Amino acid sequence: MSGHNLQVCLTPTIFDRYADPDAIVVVIDTLRASSAICNAFANGAHSLIPVPSLDEAREYKKKGYMVAAERDGYVQDFADFGNSPFNFTADRVGGKTIVYSTTNGTRSIEVASSCYRVVIGSFLNISSLEEWLLEQERDVILLCAGWKGKVSLEDSVFAGAMASRLLRSEKFESICDSVTIVLDIWKIAEPDVLSYIDKAAQRSRLREKGLDDCIPFCHTEDSTDAIPYLDKESLYNIKNKAI
Amino acid sequence: MSGHNLQVCLTPTIFDRYADPDAIVVVIDTLRASSAICNAFANGAHSLIPVPSLDEAREYKKKGYMVAAERDGYVQDFADFGNSPFNFTADRVGGKTIVYSTTNGTRSIEVASSCYRVVIGSFLNISSLEEWLLEQERDVILLCAGWKGKVSLEDSVFAGAMASRLLRSEKFESICDSVTIVLDIWKIAEPDVLSYIDKAAQRSRLREKGLDDCIPFCHTEDSTDAIPYLDKESLYNIKNKAI
Repeated sequence: MSGHNLQVCLTPTIFDRYADPDAIVVVIDTLRASSAICNAFANGAHSLIPVPSLDEAREYKKKGYMVAAERDGYVQDFADFGNSPFNFTADRVGGKTIVYSTTNGTRSIEVASSCYRVVIGSFLNISSLEEWLLEQERDVILLCAGWKGKVSLEDSVFAGAMASRLLRSEKFESICDSVTIVLDIWKIAEPDVLSYIDKAAQRSRLREKGLDDCIPFCHTEDSTDAIPYLDKESLYNIKNKAI
Repeated sequence: MSGHNLQVCLTPTIFDRYADPDAIVVVIDTLRASSAICNAFANGAHSLIPVPSLDEAREYKKKGYMVAAERDGYVQDFADFGNSPFNFTADRVGGKTIVYSTTNGTRSIEVASSCYRVVIGSFLNISSLEEWLLEQERDVILLCAGWKGKVSLEDSVFAGAMASRLLRSEKFESICDSVTIVLDIWKIAEPDVLSYIDKAAQRSRLREKGLDDCIPFCHTEDSTDAIPYLDKESLYNIKNKAI
């Protein structure tokens, strides 16, 4: 191939089949972790520590961190607020380090960390991220966080949107079947993304818990130019730090 | 849900997330294992033993079995013939037990064997299998064998074709995101399946090795009413045996 290789991995469980130590990995968990993380940086957070378990979140709280943690729609009693992107307001997160409890998102970040660089993607930062990826001259893997190891529609939709943008440039090529799949999903979803997302299982789960109010926000493009990236175990905004 | 639950699992690596001990699992490896297996029974094979490794295939050969085994497009020197569906002719397989070496297919059959029943699906037996699945009054999981743990386009296309047939009946329902994905892939593929399959990585792999001559045959519907099913470690035709 003459261009950089673009791959899509539909669930972190199979990431080892796609992994490439020289590639940039975009972690995608649009409902809601990657949207919430992007919004935290949009509102001036200094850094964010993703943790997989409530126990770890609780430990961080004891050390004095501000913690976002919920399960099944209930904010944990030890936490400062829940996992909705709407909770990451400027007055709460500006200049601060936030601990964010997210099972699927953390698992994806962990498996991706063997690669060259890990960044966080969502519709909130899609154009900024696209532009940055095109500048890097590297292979890219779009990693969908999914839900409990299953493939999820909403992450596949975003992977399709980003793949379609990157493949418009001659810089990228792909022979990955999952890229073909998400491109076609995106082709169907693009004219009315919110109606399409209505079919997602996660949409139903959030609706049952009254947590679906953030779905239009999570599918609004370009509310921020922030690009969260991983350094050791914390996320920072690439726009704030020379790397 | 009032109907039986339909799920799609896009790669055997994540099957444990979808597994259901009471469900029927349809193993799909259209290029070429599931098509070859269906064609073997179409041509009167008595039974078929899928094996994952060439070493196991060689051991069976020593015991006197007829063995289909190839790697990278070359028929193994110990084998009777290669893995193409075209090799399973009536004069070769009629009334016989055949050992078939297939890495992805065997892996899928193995993981699925914890469920109620395992059957083999391909376009060759799609209508017969649809009819049988509708009669069973059970949940169904369509399991795509994929390629070396990755998701493959051709298996997703067949899963979409079968899901679309089953969901036409009120007997089945689904809240599985992978069902939504393959239904939409099928919607795009259906008007011209062979052109769509042209985008598949496996199509390119087979073409490079001169093994793509079977692709139109593997996408021709209803050349047989045979339904291969697993009993212990062998496959038989459900139409020949009371179960």
